[in-house]
Amino acid sequence: MTLTLNSPLDMHLHVRDNDMLKTVVHLSTYSFAGAIIMPNLVPPITTIKALKAYKQRILSSTCKDDFEPLMTLFFKSDYDYEFLKEAKKYISAIKLYPSGVTTNSLDGVSSMDVEKLRGTLEAMSELEIPLLVHGETSGFVMDREKEFCSIYEQFAINFPNLKIVMEHITTAQSVALLDRYENLYATITLHHLLITLDDVIGGMLKPHLFCKPIAKRVEDKEELLRVALSAYPKVMFGSDSAPHPKDKKECCGCAAGVFTAPIVLQVLTQLFEKYDKLENLQAFVSDNAQKIYNFKPLNKKVTLEKKEFIVPNSYGSVVPMFAGEKLLWSIKGVL
Amino acid sequence: MTLTLNSPLDMHLHVRDNDMLKTVVHLSTYSFAGAIIMPNLVPPITTIKALKAYKQRILSSTCKDDFEPLMTLFFKSDYDYEFLKEAKKYISAIKLYPSGVTTNSLDGVSSMDVEKLRGTLEAMSELEIPLLVHGETSGFVMDREKEFCSIYEQFAINFPNLKIVMEHITTAQSVALLDRYENLYATITLHHLLITLDDVIGGMLKPHLFCKPIAKRVEDKEELLRVALSAYPKVMFGSDSAPHPKDKKECCGCAAGVFTAPIVLQVLTQLFEKYDKLENLQAFVSDNAQKIYNFKPLNKKVTLEKKEFIVPNSYGSVVPMFAGEKLLWSIKGVL
Repeated sequence: MTLTLNSPLDMHLHVRDNDMLKTVVHLSTYSFAGAIIMPNLVPPITTIKALKAYKQRILSSTCKDDFEPLMTLFFKSDYDYEFLKEAKKYISAIKLYPSGVTTNSLDGVSSMDVEKLRGTLEAMSELEIPLLVHGETSGFVMDREKEFCSIYEQFAINFPNLKIVMEHITTAQSVALLDRYENLYATITLHHLLITLDDVIGGMLKPHLFCKPIAKRVEDKEELLRVALSAYPKVMFGSDSAPHPKDKKECCGCAAGVFTAPIVLQVLTQLFEKYDKLENLQAFVSDNAQKIYNFKPLNKKVTLEKKEFIVPNSYGSVVPMFAGEKLLWSIKGVL
Repeated sequence: MTLTLNSPLDMHLHVRDNDMLKTVVHLSTYSFAGAIIMPNLVPPITTIKALKAYKQRILSSTCKDDFEPLMTLFFKSDYDYEFLKEAKKYISAIKLYPSGVTTNSLDGVSSMDVEKLRGTLEAMSELEIPLLVHGETSGFVMDREKEFCSIYEQFAINFPNLKIVMEHITTAQSVALLDRYENLYATITLHHLLITLDDVIGGMLKPHLFCKPIAKRVEDKEELLRVALSAYPKVMFGSDSAPHPKDKKECCGCAAGVFTAPIVLQVLTQLFEKYDKLENLQAFVSDNAQKIYNFKPLNKKVTLEKKEFIVPNSYGSVVPMFAGEKLLWSIKGVL
């Protein structure tokens, strides 16, 4: 049994830089025709020059020419119209981080006051540059995304022509916003379709499942599954695959992020098959994103076979989700 | 500045066995006149013979004769009256674990149905043996203790003469039960007076703060602080200090437990001083427990000095809470 996907896309990906980039990027290129590349390097990507150089480093770290890094800038509230007009030639979106909420986000925005961000957001709106948001407050860890919903609403109301993507949503409250605001969209990760907080801290503590936003309750996971599996047009797949070396995960202060790049497509196929929704996978991993971002990806076919795949224990220094476990599907041509 | 405590007691302590016992037990003997010793070894302590032998191993692991291990049995629903009558000579309490809720608890009770436990609990009630309970259901990790409250209520109502200690409580709901049922008491750990879930998973993931029950919300912590600091007579200090080797904490599946034994008394003093409640520390760390358990501990004075103490990075293979940090108080005579 095989399944062929047309131009699958990962709409939220961390490939980092230098050696880590070389370790991980090819693991996305065998599954995807393109990926939205997160800009939270150290320092973050805030200039066109840095962006072009980073794109070049990504391309030269892979021998494949059928994978397009879809570049993003790190949001700053002092980007002006002229800068953004020029930047638009090279970027797919701009990513906004509240300061300090996740890995390498200290240079993010310290106030979510709409008026302080209005100049940049209006220019983005006019130039049709999507805004991607890590939507968490600095509140209690289980409430951060829920508390951010009112900020999403302020953004959606104040900038009705701005496409706003709520990145890696984890709660039923965020899903509910999708129906209420035409200009709100969302990415959903693989791991948030699979785990709850119980998987992270309910038994033994599992650092490789520790991520931001943290996985929530079963009723949240069920809402994410509902919209992902039903080809609901406002949600896209975005892995948020975030590689950290093993010694930064298994230590006294573990970094946030689940590394899923090498196995996302296989596990998504397994998941959609389990719920008898394989026919909706194409929408979730590509078609919805093409419509939301209004773009045509590289033409690429990726074929999955129903053939066992044993997940390696690590890729270089990075431990993937499902390390050492057996998956039911493989990507054709990938050992 | 010094503070002298009379016979401080740790009413919930894990000292494990063999090499680990030798590593950790003396760290409790310099702070305490006695400690309630948890019975969840592998296999658990369920016979008088095993209990006596374990007590002997504890005593011979320390050169001090001013520390009394207060022994407990691991609750089994088939303990009969005659056995318990004999056991009472050697034990201070019996500890009940729901099966699977924490470290080495698989042999615990699989049903909390009062009728199934009635025989043993009635015998304990008649013999005046306190029941200590790890009160968590197998539900969602943040709800487990809250869900257990109705079981505590069933126990309290059905066995009005049984002293029931809710061990290591972490929620405002458990605190509220204390006022409602005369025969309910509680221990509170140091770490649950200091941390919330945010400290464990809100920034970097902190495996050395991972414990069961997991730390909860700030409003829960405030309720625990309120009763601990006010000399509320139904709560006692119990560290739940739980040593695991570093490689079982900083790994892909980290064991639950915070190791606080070497620093609990110093940090408690610092905490009570911070809230200007030093006069209530004696009640929290000894007097309340003596009244609740109706016993006289060994006569021992422990003096704390307001003198810096740098917490070692590890004791043997075990990393303590506050490793490498500076505390404001020291125990006199302990370097």
